[in-house]
Amino acid sequence: MTAAEVVALLHAELGDRVDLSPAALEDARSDKSGHASAGPPLAVVHAASVADVQATLRIAHRTGTPVVTRGAGTGLAGAANAGPGEIALSVRRMDRILEVRPDDLLAVVEPGILNADLNDALAADGLWWAPDPASRAISTVGGNIATGAGGLLCAKYGVVRDAVLGVDLVLADGRLLTLGHRSVKGVTGLDLTSLVIGSEGTLGVIVGATLKLRRLVPGHRRTITATFPDVRAAAVGAAAVTASGVQPAIMELMDAASLGAAHALLGLPAPAPGAAQLTIQTDGPAAIDEAESIASTLGALGAVVRLAADDGEAEHLLTVRRSMHPAMESLGTALIEDVAVPRSRLPEMFDEIARVEREHGLRIPTVCHAGDGNLHPNFIFQGTEVPPEIWAAADDLFRAALRLGGTLTGEHGIGVLKRRWLADELGADQWELQRQITRVFDPTGILNPGKVFAP
Amino acid sequence: MTAAEVVALLHAELGDRVDLSPAALEDARSDKSGHASAGPPLAVVHAASVADVQATLRIAHRTGTPVVTRGAGTGLAGAANAGPGEIALSVRRMDRILEVRPDDLLAVVEPGILNADLNDALAADGLWWAPDPASRAISTVGGNIATGAGGLLCAKYGVVRDAVLGVDLVLADGRLLTLGHRSVKGVTGLDLTSLVIGSEGTLGVIVGATLKLRRLVPGHRRTITATFPDVRAAAVGAAAVTASGVQPAIMELMDAASLGAAHALLGLPAPAPGAAQLTIQTDGPAAIDEAESIASTLGALGAVVRLAADDGEAEHLLTVRRSMHPAMESLGTALIEDVAVPRSRLPEMFDEIARVEREHGLRIPTVCHAGDGNLHPNFIFQGTEVPPEIWAAADDLFRAALRLGGTLTGEHGIGVLKRRWLADELGADQWELQRQITRVFDPTGILNPGKVFAP
Repeated sequence: MTAAEVVALLHAELGDRVDLSPAALEDARSDKSGHASAGPPLAVVHAASVADVQATLRIAHRTGTPVVTRGAGTGLAGAANAGPGEIALSVRRMDRILEVRPDDLLAVVEPGILNADLNDALAADGLWWAPDPASRAISTVGGNIATGAGGLLCAKYGVVRDAVLGVDLVLADGRLLTLGHRSVKGVTGLDLTSLVIGSEGTLGVIVGATLKLRRLVPGHRRTITATFPDVRAAAVGAAAVTASGVQPAIMELMDAASLGAAHALLGLPAPAPGAAQLTIQTDGPAAIDEAESIASTLGALGAVVRLAADDGEAEHLLTVRRSMHPAMESLGTALIEDVAVPRSRLPEMFDEIARVEREHGLRIPTVCHAGDGNLHPNFIFQGTEVPPEIWAAADDLFRAALRLGGTLTGEHGIGVLKRRWLADELGADQWELQRQITRVFDPTGILNPGKVFAP
Repeated sequence: MTAAEVVALLHAELGDRVDLSPAALEDARSDKSGHASAGPPLAVVHAASVADVQATLRIAHRTGTPVVTRGAGTGLAGAANAGPGEIALSVRRMDRILEVRPDDLLAVVEPGILNADLNDALAADGLWWAPDPASRAISTVGGNIATGAGGLLCAKYGVVRDAVLGVDLVLADGRLLTLGHRSVKGVTGLDLTSLVIGSEGTLGVIVGATLKLRRLVPGHRRTITATFPDVRAAAVGAAAVTASGVQPAIMELMDAASLGAAHALLGLPAPAPGAAQLTIQTDGPAAIDEAESIASTLGALGAVVRLAADDGEAEHLLTVRRSMHPAMESLGTALIEDVAVPRSRLPEMFDEIARVEREHGLRIPTVCHAGDGNLHPNFIFQGTEVPPEIWAAADDLFRAALRLGGTLTGEHGIGVLKRRWLADELGADQWELQRQITRVFDPTGILNPGKVFAP
C-alpha cells in the first residue's frame, strides 16, 4: 500500500485530526536531544480520544505502517522522533484530568497533560505527583511514564516506577488493555504496568494512567550550598551526606565547568578556578535539623557552606543550578548524557570523567543528581549531528559507568541515541529476551521500530 | 523418559542434594494455605548454589520435567506446591547475605534467607528491608519477591515492588540472567525486575536479589486502639484517618468475629457484641503529634480511644491483632482470602462481606490492613479440602471486590487457589498476553505449570 493510500485511510477515519502541514511533519522529526530522523513522517495524527488512538492503530496494523507515539517532544534520546513512512501519533491533546481522589491518593489522567499542569491542579487538594523531571513544565505525564522519568527529588520521593498504579494501553492491533489496579496493593498476574513504564513506545500507546499521589510535604524547607575546591571533593561530600543517614529532598552537584558557565550566563562573579558546588534542600518536619546536620558534615570536610536565610536567597541559590541547561545551550549543541552509578561510586565516576576529558581532549561539563548517583555529562559541539569523536568519548564514559556497577541511562532512556550500547549492559541473552517480549505486544513490529532494540 | 531416569540424572549431577525421603516429598506438596497437590513430586532438590539451580533446570529442560521452586513453603495460594512428575526445587538453603552497603542503601542476598533473619542482620548497620509480611519470621526473601508480598507497613513504607533493584534469574533452560541495576535510577531497556516480582515461579528461578534498603526510622512510636460499635463505623474511621492526611505506619482493623476470637484465645474479657477495633501505630519524628491527631479524628467519630502509655502497653495492644491467625486456626481450617479495594471503598466492602455472610449463611471473620485497603476475610471449615459452598461464597466476595474497583489479591498471589478468577480481573486479552510472556521465558512450559495461568 502506498503512503498516499494510508493517509487516505487515516483521513477517512480521523478527518482533521490528520495533519500534513510541513511545520507539523518537520516538528515530529526531532525531540530535545537535537537528533532528527532522516525525513518527515507521512502524517501526524493529533488524537483527541482513546477511540482516535485505536482507529489509528487499526489502520497502521492493517497496512503494516510504523507508528511513533509522541507527547510534547521533550525526550533526550530520540525515542519519539518519527521518520519517512511512519505515522507520528501525538497524544498531546489528550490532556484531561479525569479523576482526583484525595481519600485514595490517586488521580486518573490522560497522557498528554503536562506534569506541571497536573501538579498545579493537584495542589488545590494539597496533593502532588512526585516525579519531577527537569522538563516538568514542558513534558507530559504520558512521556514521563514512557521514559520512566526521574528528576531531582528521586532519592527521597521516588521515580515514575514508584508513582504509577495502572496504565491503559492500546496495543499494536488497536485493542485496549487496562493494566494495574486502583488499590495500594495488588499482585494479580504479571506486573505489566511496570513493564510499560520506560518501554519507550515499543509495547503500545499509553492512553490513560492511574497515578499514585502524595500529600504536599508540610513544614519548612532549607536550602544550602557547599563549595569545594574541586569536583572530587564535592562528590566525596555528597557521599558523606548520604552515608550520614540524613535524606535531603534535593542534592545537586555542579562541576567547575558547569558552575562557571552558569555564573557567566547569570552575570555573577566567576567562581574560584576548579571550584565545584553542592546545592542541597531539606524539607518536612525535620528540615531545619537536617540542614544543620548537613552543614556540619560538609563543613567538617572543608566546604564553604552557605545556608539561605530566607526564601529569596534560597531561590537565588537554586537559580544557579537551574541555569545549567541554558548555559550549555549558549555554548553550542549539547549532547546531555545520563549515566547513573551507585552513590558511593560518585567520586570514582568523576575521576573517570576527568580521564575521558584528558584522553579525548574535551571539556565535559557535568551536573549530577548526587542524592541518587545520576550524572548528566554534557558534550558540546557545533551543528546538529553528533561528531564521531564525541561518540568515542561518550562510549568510553558509558563503559566506565558500567564498570562501576552503573547503568547507561538513569532517566532519559535508550531511544535511538544509545541503542548500540544496550546489549553491553543487558547481555545478549537478556537483549534477545526483551526483544521477544516486545513481539508479544507487537507481533508485526510496527510500534516505534528502530528504537531501543534496533540492531 | 521415566521418572526414575530423571532422578538418576539429578543424582549424577547433584548427589546428596537430591532428597527422596518420604517426609521431604510430602512436605513439598503443600504450603500454609492448607491446599496440597495430588501426590508427592518425583524428587526434592536442595540447591546450595546458583550452579545447582542451573544444573537442575538443564536436566528439567532436556527431559521436559516440570519444576516447582520453593522457599520456606509459607505461601497462601498453593503456588509452590509440587505434585506428581514434578521436581520440587528448594532454594531455602541458599540463605547468605552476600553484601550490605550502608552508603548505597542496598544489600545483595541469596533467595532462601528469612525476611526476619535478614532484618536482624541489617539492624546492626541501622538499616532495614521494609517489606513486612505477617509471615516475616518464617518466609524467605525469595518467596516475598516471587509473590510480591505486602504486609502491615505498606501504605507508609511500600511493598516488595518498591524495595527491589535487581534480580538474578535462572531461566527454564538453565541460563542465568542479571536483571535490574544497583543505582537508585535506571531505565535501560524493559523493567524485567518488576516483571519477575509477583510472577510466582512462572518466569524463572530467583537465585539472587539486590534489595533497596531504608534506614531504621528514628524517633518515637505511638500505639493506639480505637473501638467502634460495629465494623462499618471502624472502616469509616480508617478512611477518615487516611483522608485527614496523617500517615500511620500501621493501621489494622479487626471485625467483631476476629476480635472476639482473639480475646477468647488470649483469655481476655469478651468485647461488647458487634464491637470492632482499629490498631494504629505512628512512627518517626512526628509520631506523637500524629497519634494525637488520629486520636482526635477517631474520638470525634465516637470511638473509644486508648493511647498506650508505654511500650509494654503498646505490645499488649498489638498482641491482640497478632493473635488473629492462631485464633482462626483454633476454630478449624482457615482459607485466608486477600482482596484489596481503594481505601475509600472499605466501608462498602465490609457491607458486601456482611451481605455474603447473610446470603451464604456463613461467618467470615475479617482482618484488614486498613491503611492500604487490603482485607483478609477468613473462611473456616473442617478438613483439608475447601468445600464447594465456601468457594461459592468466596466467588461472591471476589466479584464484589472487583465491582468496587479492587483486586483479587493484594499480597498472597494467584497460585492454584485463585487461577479460575484470574481472567475475570485481567480480561481475556490481557490473560492471553500474560500467558504468552511466560512462554518467552519458558517456551516449553516446564516452570510451575498449572499455576496462575492454568485454564
